[in-house]
Amino acid sequence: MANRRDFLQILSLGAGLTALSRATSARAGVLSSLPKSDRQLRVALMGLGSYATRVAEAMESCQRAKLVGIVTGTPAKAEAWKKKYNIPDKNIYNYQTVSQLKNNPDIDAVYIITPNSLHHQHVMQVAAAGKHVICEKPLADTAKQAQEMITACEKAGMKLYVGYRLHFEPHTREVIRMREAGELGTILFVDNTCGFKIGDPTQWRLKKALAGGGALMDVGIYAINGARYGTGEEPLWVTAQEIKTDPVKFAEVDETITFQMGFPGGAIATCSTTYNFNNLGRLYVVGEKGFAELDPAFGYGPIKGRTHKGPLNQPVITHQTAQMDGLAECILDNKPDPNMTGHEALRDMKVIDAIYESIRKGGQKIMIG
Amino acid sequence: MANRRDFLQILSLGAGLTALSRATSARAGVLSSLPKSDRQLRVALMGLGSYATRVAEAMESCQRAKLVGIVTGTPAKAEAWKKKYNIPDKNIYNYQTVSQLKNNPDIDAVYIITPNSLHHQHVMQVAAAGKHVICEKPLADTAKQAQEMITACEKAGMKLYVGYRLHFEPHTREVIRMREAGELGTILFVDNTCGFKIGDPTQWRLKKALAGGGALMDVGIYAINGARYGTGEEPLWVTAQEIKTDPVKFAEVDETITFQMGFPGGAIATCSTTYNFNNLGRLYVVGEKGFAELDPAFGYGPIKGRTHKGPLNQPVITHQTAQMDGLAECILDNKPDPNMTGHEALRDMKVIDAIYESIRKGGQKIMIG
Repeated sequence: MANRRDFLQILSLGAGLTALSRATSARAGVLSSLPKSDRQLRVALMGLGSYATRVAEAMESCQRAKLVGIVTGTPAKAEAWKKKYNIPDKNIYNYQTVSQLKNNPDIDAVYIITPNSLHHQHVMQVAAAGKHVICEKPLADTAKQAQEMITACEKAGMKLYVGYRLHFEPHTREVIRMREAGELGTILFVDNTCGFKIGDPTQWRLKKALAGGGALMDVGIYAINGARYGTGEEPLWVTAQEIKTDPVKFAEVDETITFQMGFPGGAIATCSTTYNFNNLGRLYVVGEKGFAELDPAFGYGPIKGRTHKGPLNQPVITHQTAQMDGLAECILDNKPDPNMTGHEALRDMKVIDAIYESIRKGGQKIMIG
Repeated sequence: MANRRDFLQILSLGAGLTALSRATSARAGVLSSLPKSDRQLRVALMGLGSYATRVAEAMESCQRAKLVGIVTGTPAKAEAWKKKYNIPDKNIYNYQTVSQLKNNPDIDAVYIITPNSLHHQHVMQVAAAGKHVICEKPLADTAKQAQEMITACEKAGMKLYVGYRLHFEPHTREVIRMREAGELGTILFVDNTCGFKIGDPTQWRLKKALAGGGALMDVGIYAINGARYGTGEEPLWVTAQEIKTDPVKFAEVDETITFQMGFPGGAIATCSTTYNFNNLGRLYVVGEKGFAELDPAFGYGPIKGRTHKGPLNQPVITHQTAQMDGLAECILDNKPDPNMTGHEALRDMKVIDAIYESIRKGGQKIMIG
């Protein structure tokens, strides 16, 4: 069985390792249009699971972001990371000492990669400690939580970004560019899917108290975010259906959800997400003038795609390298919003709230506030 | 604007014309395993619209089927077809003389290609005249009608097939073969879409009295049939949502419908159909062991596809040639059921009934009888 670490890699249908080797040159391509400064964003990673490992490795190729600190509840991990990344003792925290970050002038931002349901608490703590926040998706369990986190960061004067790494991914950016340039015409239809077969039945992703929800929260959010950047609009309404074929494994969280959204310009999105099977990670956007398809669309790469004009041949990059360099420029140089702010994440959370509400109400159409 | 004649051709993303030129050799490939006899099925076409024109042209390459008669209400068409296809006067009928087919020993079968809502009446008439029936899809407006048509043909001792041409299409057959051989593993998910942007707002397809319904009846049925041959199972339930962005053009029939189905083996299908945009014609089947994708899946060809093993490179054929040769063998040589019988169509009609019922009931889950 594939575990989650493998999942987005599986979606790439191989060749994922090439992304790393091509990262440096490709990243230069993505960021070449942006002005450079010498300052680096000094980042602490909070939550040293498999994704944090991936981020740390990707950050070794960063130009504008640098891993300088960690927050972990596991002393053995602290020791290992300290050695591997040459992290000074004064930049090593645990979950009881997070508030002390405020006394550390050598850390600019904390990247929160803890289990999803802990994001709310951790963002509030990091904001209170006066550090900028990068938080993995989903930002929160609910829109209400997300709003509280945004407000807390704003009050603290700290920036809040969410790890929607695809907004720095060249194929994704090209689809957005084409749509914005009108090359697809008025968008009429989106068919997005994202899911994988979850492995270890004891993992936190299957516990509601840690995960907030199931496939929808974890990876269905890619389909939602993709429908929003595929249309460039906010959905007006949603209908949704939940299917559970394994009520034991998925006793606490959703297994498979299908949902539909309506957009102001007339576009309809139909989306599916699951923890029950692989080979599900496609973005498909149809406009009056053409289409764009990314498949795999949401994995760690390589992203592949085509449009009505032919194959999309964009640079293959390491998403996390590009994201961290890109967000460093947003934070340090006040670069424009890359559609990865807390406000963007709040919009996804409103959709997630509405999807769960529609399911509770038997598939009823829910207007999104 | 594309008209419907262009639609399935558009889905092919070009190269459609090559299908004709390759038809003979490819057809031989499809049928080579079947024993041959010299008898030809002598066919009359009823309803000489654009699709009948396509069928007639395709039949010029047939080995086992021959166009020998026509039924048309338009004298000018009768004259033109008589000349083009050398049809004897005694084999030319209009809608008032259909019953006289029973006195014509030179016609074995009638292929009914009239507007959808007329299929019921015409199948009943042809069966009563003692001729085998091939009827375009959808077989009927409702499952009740379809059952009546099946019963009438059975009582008359006549065979009833429906123009589900893809069951003779090599890429489609290969996907079915892989699924039956277990190469995809247990099927868990299907994502099928079929639609096109309808042109002329005055055409019969937009009139409920002639069309029975809209996109769902006309092309959504491909997504339904594809979910059935993709899983090899009959759906247990359906949920459905209708979206209408142009209530004037689509005053009488459905414009866009999304629907979901659940299957006994645990598979879920999510499908979409529309009359409102192009670039929608994909079959996607995910099993525990792999996937199969056809895109374009439902047009007149060339059908293209891939699986987890790589590209599907099957012969490109003219679907209508293969269908008519294949059905000739079913009728004349009692070849096994090619999943194109009235009973097969009845199962699709039960799903269509349930989809419309779910829409009427606000997306409620409808069990399929």
